[in-house]
Amino acid sequence: MAHALEPDMYQCVIGVDVGGSKIAAGVVDRAGVIRARIECPTDVSTATETVDSIVSAIRHVAEMVGCPVEQIAGIGLGIPGKVNAAQGIGVLSVNLHWHDVPVQAMLEERLHVPCRIENDVKAGALGELAYGAAQGITDLVYLVVGTGVAAGIICDGKLYRGSGAMAGEVGHAVLFPQGRMCKCGARGCLEAHVAGPAIAERARAAMCAEHTSSVKHDDSSLVTAKTVLTAAAQGDVVATRVVHAVAADLAFAIQILFTCFDPQMFVLAGGIAHAGAPLLNAVRQELAQYASRSSVFNEIYSPPAVQLSALQNDAGILGAAALVTEIASARGEPRW
Amino acid sequence: MAHALEPDMYQCVIGVDVGGSKIAAGVVDRAGVIRARIECPTDVSTATETVDSIVSAIRHVAEMVGCPVEQIAGIGLGIPGKVNAAQGIGVLSVNLHWHDVPVQAMLEERLHVPCRIENDVKAGALGELAYGAAQGITDLVYLVVGTGVAAGIICDGKLYRGSGAMAGEVGHAVLFPQGRMCKCGARGCLEAHVAGPAIAERARAAMCAEHTSSVKHDDSSLVTAKTVLTAAAQGDVVATRVVHAVAADLAFAIQILFTCFDPQMFVLAGGIAHAGAPLLNAVRQELAQYASRSSVFNEIYSPPAVQLSALQNDAGILGAAALVTEIASARGEPRW
Repeated sequence: MAHALEPDMYQCVIGVDVGGSKIAAGVVDRAGVIRARIECPTDVSTATETVDSIVSAIRHVAEMVGCPVEQIAGIGLGIPGKVNAAQGIGVLSVNLHWHDVPVQAMLEERLHVPCRIENDVKAGALGELAYGAAQGITDLVYLVVGTGVAAGIICDGKLYRGSGAMAGEVGHAVLFPQGRMCKCGARGCLEAHVAGPAIAERARAAMCAEHTSSVKHDDSSLVTAKTVLTAAAQGDVVATRVVHAVAADLAFAIQILFTCFDPQMFVLAGGIAHAGAPLLNAVRQELAQYASRSSVFNEIYSPPAVQLSALQNDAGILGAAALVTEIASARGEPRW
Repeated sequence: MAHALEPDMYQCVIGVDVGGSKIAAGVVDRAGVIRARIECPTDVSTATETVDSIVSAIRHVAEMVGCPVEQIAGIGLGIPGKVNAAQGIGVLSVNLHWHDVPVQAMLEERLHVPCRIENDVKAGALGELAYGAAQGITDLVYLVVGTGVAAGIICDGKLYRGSGAMAGEVGHAVLFPQGRMCKCGARGCLEAHVAGPAIAERARAAMCAEHTSSVKHDDSSLVTAKTVLTAAAQGDVVATRVVHAVAADLAFAIQILFTCFDPQMFVLAGGIAHAGAPLLNAVRQELAQYASRSSVFNEIYSPPAVQLSALQNDAGILGAAALVTEIASARGEPRW
């Protein structure tokens, strides 16, 4: 599986996607090909233990391509939660139980390789820009719809972080004031309507109302966003109805984001991107309705601007890898 | 009124606010003081006539300070509608009947002074940054609520225009799907709920329902946003209720914009800013509610971040003047 690196490929980077339950690390070459990858569980008992698991994953994946870690051009880490990228600090990560962890310094001290860290969604936007659907794009909104919902924003070719690294936290914009409760405490957040758990819950509710769905509901706890999206793709009526309702809520959010950012491209990423063409088409149909009604929105929006992530399961590793190359890319210089 | 310029003040700029009915031009010194100003009607019969009125206003106001136009460091123009700032073209302005007018070239040919043009709201954001409430701020959302509604966005100290110069056109985000009809053709745009004409119309409707308002309604066409805001400031019950409803709709939009951009400061500008403290307080109260409910929004939002424009009636001229200095400011260089 792992390819040994030729000498000219030594200047690879390692991208590490740090999740609350697992760490995925990959060696990424100049072309954005993942030459080796590894997954291991995240030890979240203390920050030091977590960094130990990260270091071990990095050493392991470098070994797989026969490249000493010291030869690696750089290491990028995508982390859930709030990150101070400039100072290399994991400010707040509920999933990792981190609070002000100087993870960049901790890693550099042990590995003697330049490291960069960033929020995983923001890293994902950079990955899509460097290796995915948004290559060559300068203005991008990259919306991850997975367990949570957040956007990575590229303005004029550069990641936009906001004043407190919270730009793109649109999952917690209240868009549906009479809507569903969100785990942040508010009612009607975008996340509470379209994230994976919300999709599953909406499907369960729909199945209770109507008992004709092929989605397994003798044990409704087995209904997940994935089973719903799969059932919809196979033509299940109730699942299709739920997916269309989710697409309508997504389109409602997307038309707002278009007027805010006027992006060249809008990428839907995260678990929802696996739903593929049926979901994308439903979202585009809804957006076409907005465009047909408003002369101004019609000026801003064009259907090909909305795409699915091209990176899918590689988004985490490639996004993290892209962190190493971010500054160079923004300057139009070669990636590293 | 106009002060003659000392020789060291010769390097002033001229800011021109081009509206559909009037042109306002001012000579602005290094400190952002308007040394002379003039207003004249806009001749919109043809683009050439409009440019003639602009040139005449510029010559006139330069004369008022005894400064030959050729000595002016630069001229900035704020124009309603879509502008290609890089090419100096007025792409589409309904108010001016402009379609692809190369206004920058036309002005430079006649005046032999460097000119820059920009959409008036985007220029306003730069003006607030250079001379107003947002001095020293790097991440700003500047929301103009006047006859229309639009935002000027400053990201990392630079004006963000979007891929088609439409970034910040949030007046035409549909936020209230069951809401009021907008002149763009859609239902529920932010503009249709909080712009000046909407405020007046909402007040008229409230007065029809309840006949105790001090707002003059023997001829309800005399009810304007201004009379409503004034009546509310004087304690009128119906007007106050309308202003609070408008504040609630504004806060709904503002909490979304905070999650999108995570700005350091949010400035409310345009006619609505004249409503002063009562409106600002009502908006802040609504935002405090959002913050109290959501742990995430509470992380993003802090009350002093929302301010009223400090420039008020000078916003047009100072915004246009700031165009001349935009690039230098973004680089942290002296203004000119």
